[in-house]
Amino acid sequence: MAARPSEFALIAKYFKPLARDPGALALGDDACLLENYAGSETVATTDALIAGVHFLADDPPHLIARKALRVNLSDLAAKGAAPAGYLLALSLPQDFETEWLEGFVRGLAEDQQRFGISLLGGDTTATPGPLTLAITALGRVPKGRMIKRAGAEPGDGVYVSGSIGDAAAGLAVLQGTLAAGPHAAYLSGRYRLPEPRLDLGTALHGTASAALDVSDGLLADLGHIAEVSRVRIVVEALRIPRSEALQAVWGSTPEAVLRAATAGDDYEIAFTAPSEEAALAAGRQGGVAVTRIGRVEAGQGVVLLDDSGREISVAKAGFSHF
Amino acid sequence: MAARPSEFALIAKYFKPLARDPGALALGDDACLLENYAGSETVATTDALIAGVHFLADDPPHLIARKALRVNLSDLAAKGAAPAGYLLALSLPQDFETEWLEGFVRGLAEDQQRFGISLLGGDTTATPGPLTLAITALGRVPKGRMIKRAGAEPGDGVYVSGSIGDAAAGLAVLQGTLAAGPHAAYLSGRYRLPEPRLDLGTALHGTASAALDVSDGLLADLGHIAEVSRVRIVVEALRIPRSEALQAVWGSTPEAVLRAATAGDDYEIAFTAPSEEAALAAGRQGGVAVTRIGRVEAGQGVVLLDDSGREISVAKAGFSHF
Repeated sequence: MAARPSEFALIAKYFKPLARDPGALALGDDACLLENYAGSETVATTDALIAGVHFLADDPPHLIARKALRVNLSDLAAKGAAPAGYLLALSLPQDFETEWLEGFVRGLAEDQQRFGISLLGGDTTATPGPLTLAITALGRVPKGRMIKRAGAEPGDGVYVSGSIGDAAAGLAVLQGTLAAGPHAAYLSGRYRLPEPRLDLGTALHGTASAALDVSDGLLADLGHIAEVSRVRIVVEALRIPRSEALQAVWGSTPEAVLRAATAGDDYEIAFTAPSEEAALAAGRQGGVAVTRIGRVEAGQGVVLLDDSGREISVAKAGFSHF
Repeated sequence: MAARPSEFALIAKYFKPLARDPGALALGDDACLLENYAGSETVATTDALIAGVHFLADDPPHLIARKALRVNLSDLAAKGAAPAGYLLALSLPQDFETEWLEGFVRGLAEDQQRFGISLLGGDTTATPGPLTLAITALGRVPKGRMIKRAGAEPGDGVYVSGSIGDAAAGLAVLQGTLAAGPHAAYLSGRYRLPEPRLDLGTALHGTASAALDVSDGLLADLGHIAEVSRVRIVVEALRIPRSEALQAVWGSTPEAVLRAATAGDDYEIAFTAPSEEAALAAGRQGGVAVTRIGRVEAGQGVVLLDDSGREISVAKAGFSHF
């Protein structure tokens, strides 16, 4: 291995080409600048990812980069924000491989182009521990129109984009505990490369009363909406959208549905809305299926109903990386 | 030790009380919201700090917190930005002590109040490695008035706030390699708790042509200004402001001055300005001494002159944490 390059050399070679926005000041300043469009507000979110905790050290580095970026973009999407760029704090172990960094940067470049964003700033440092990265994504939302978790009202419908449970099955495929045959690539792809629903998020302005992205598990995340909106959310289990691939490998038993609804890493948008017509139209505008899965009532908590309307006991509503 | 609390419990107990800005949404949402004042732009900066690299694991946690916050605020200050708040990505080792976290949060609370800022968002996760934290600070600057590193012009004077070299001597005191007698507390305090020059930064709008905060070392950092401004910066060694404490422990030999000018962690603001009168007035307005230390010329690089105008050879212009 060649001598370890300096921080400045690393930034110049690998990160400066990613700093395409003028506000990044070519990574040559103390801070970056985010232009504020008239009538907009800034939305920000941060996530830390650690080798061995959030991804495996031998995962392809371009996929690690893209997933790290996408989980942050997914947060912006759920708030109805348009992404502008991101800051990256990267802590590299002493023995990191140049090839790893090249792959990581290639992944960032690919998704920057795809989502029209730029690296805006960052910090690169050495760590005696595992590779650790923290991404802070910045976006813009029209003033007063950020879609919050609080806002669900009794009478609203409950909706979710795409399909639920694929990522959990995909993780099992990657871990070698699930043989998914022809569905393996689709399911593992859903785990490795979630699709931030940015167009849907934008389409939900004025339509969604509350929203979030599903990362802890559908029921756990709906529980967050219920808690801060001070409402009760009732979900009909059989309405929860599951892909054909997931149904092929997990089946369609009540247990399989519950498993999908309590798994994590879906990065779909769950939201509440008073108008079903508007909710479905937002899905069409956002280019993703939107399914009505339940309703908001007065009360508290999340309830899952089976096809005869009986309550299904939910032992473990979600999943935590902590 | 009690059972490890959940991520949600940690956030509710320790971090929610820090989320005083309405835009933090009580840390109960996917993202935070930064209101954009009319005619303002958003300035952002991020820094990662790792136990054993940027601080010692047994440093007082409230000081770790305050320094982490202040080095980011110092970046905002150097850009002339007013701080609004920050996001914190905190990766805690499995065996972290509750007392450590309590001290850390107390430090954040103290400096939040001092600088009028709020925790806006964050992420808390577990790491098998050393405690790692990444802070992203957000601030506001009047549109088009961020003070950049680029902008120094031949004919400008070169200035620096406060005094240089104290932090390096303070680190030596803390490491036990320097006996500083009655000056130990002052010097170690300068290392542990830098003062972000926020009022000076604001006062420098329309006065400074370029600015940055001194973290890599005065000469190395002036080199950054010289590089991106495409100018040559000439510094007169004997004008570099050194505290009485520093002069008492390091003396005033040319070697001591060079040592101060190439040490790091000062977190003073170095800037260039066409008007000396305005530069000194900004110092008075900002509540900190401002000293003229040199001039900007056509050319490139940084040159240090001794008291007879001869160039002093600078073997190692700065210091890097990488």
